[in-house]
Amino acid sequence: MTFRSHMSDALEQARAAADRGEVPVGAVLVDPDGRVLARAGNRTRELADPTAHAEMLVIREGCRLLGSERLTGCDLYVTLEPCPMCAQAISAARIARLYYGAADPKSGGVEQGPRIFTHPQCHHIPEVYDGIAADSAAALLREFFAGRRG
Amino acid sequence: MTFRSHMSDALEQARAAADRGEVPVGAVLVDPDGRVLARAGNRTRELADPTAHAEMLVIREGCRLLGSERLTGCDLYVTLEPCPMCAQAISAARIARLYYGAADPKSGGVEQGPRIFTHPQCHHIPEVYDGIAADSAAALLREFFAGRRG
Repeated sequence: MTFRSHMSDALEQARAAADRGEVPVGAVLVDPDGRVLARAGNRTRELADPTAHAEMLVIREGCRLLGSERLTGCDLYVTLEPCPMCAQAISAARIARLYYGAADPKSGGVEQGPRIFTHPQCHHIPEVYDGIAADSAAALLREFFAGRRG
Repeated sequence: MTFRSHMSDALEQARAAADRGEVPVGAVLVDPDGRVLARAGNRTRELADPTAHAEMLVIREGCRLLGSERLTGCDLYVTLEPCPMCAQAISAARIARLYYGAADPKSGGVEQGPRIFTHPQCHHIPEVYDGIAADSAAALLREFFAGRRG
């Protein structure tokens, strides 16, 4: 599997989230051998849990499966730039590489606003690859919010 | 109950966390009528979950109890300055007031490093009261880490 197919998988999760009435963001967690450990879309509404972002759900599930607080060597694919909460959780989990799609000027925390990975208080910095299938991820979000205004 | 007794309650949770071998941080969530909704200490090791900080646990429990993603009007007491993950979750949950004890120059995200509440990407800013019972909270952490080095 290439990084593009993992991002396609994350986009599928984002579409499924939209179908559930959730903000369409999807994430996929991949272990050091390239196996998918966990997939999720946002479930904040369904679970009435403001922390149930797609990234948080795959991190928690991956840690549960590995029985470890750390996901050393694992890669995370997410369709939208993580918010500061998720960026910090990515660091705490020691994720090796973060691949994301669209930038999020409104709520992002990687290249915007608090830029979580740029401070001395960030004890692990993943490699970051942005802009992957960004158009598809952004289109999903646009359609979702246009539909809600309609 | 005054804010000092809620912080004493949070300190009790921190002590209980230390007894379980967890970093001693405790949190208490209080509803708009002054009733305690949830209490927790860190459980990252026990749960093998890097997101299981005391603050996250009480936010998730409070939301579960209220059946809502938002804790509008609720107050959060925590013995240590929240990290960026928890600070963002506090904002996302629309917590009204954050009372915390010791500053955390190493990993804090409120007055240190990313200063989560200071960016336009932060859509809700709680009132923040710091330094409450800070000496007790800091002493617990010092004793815990001294014991682990011994």
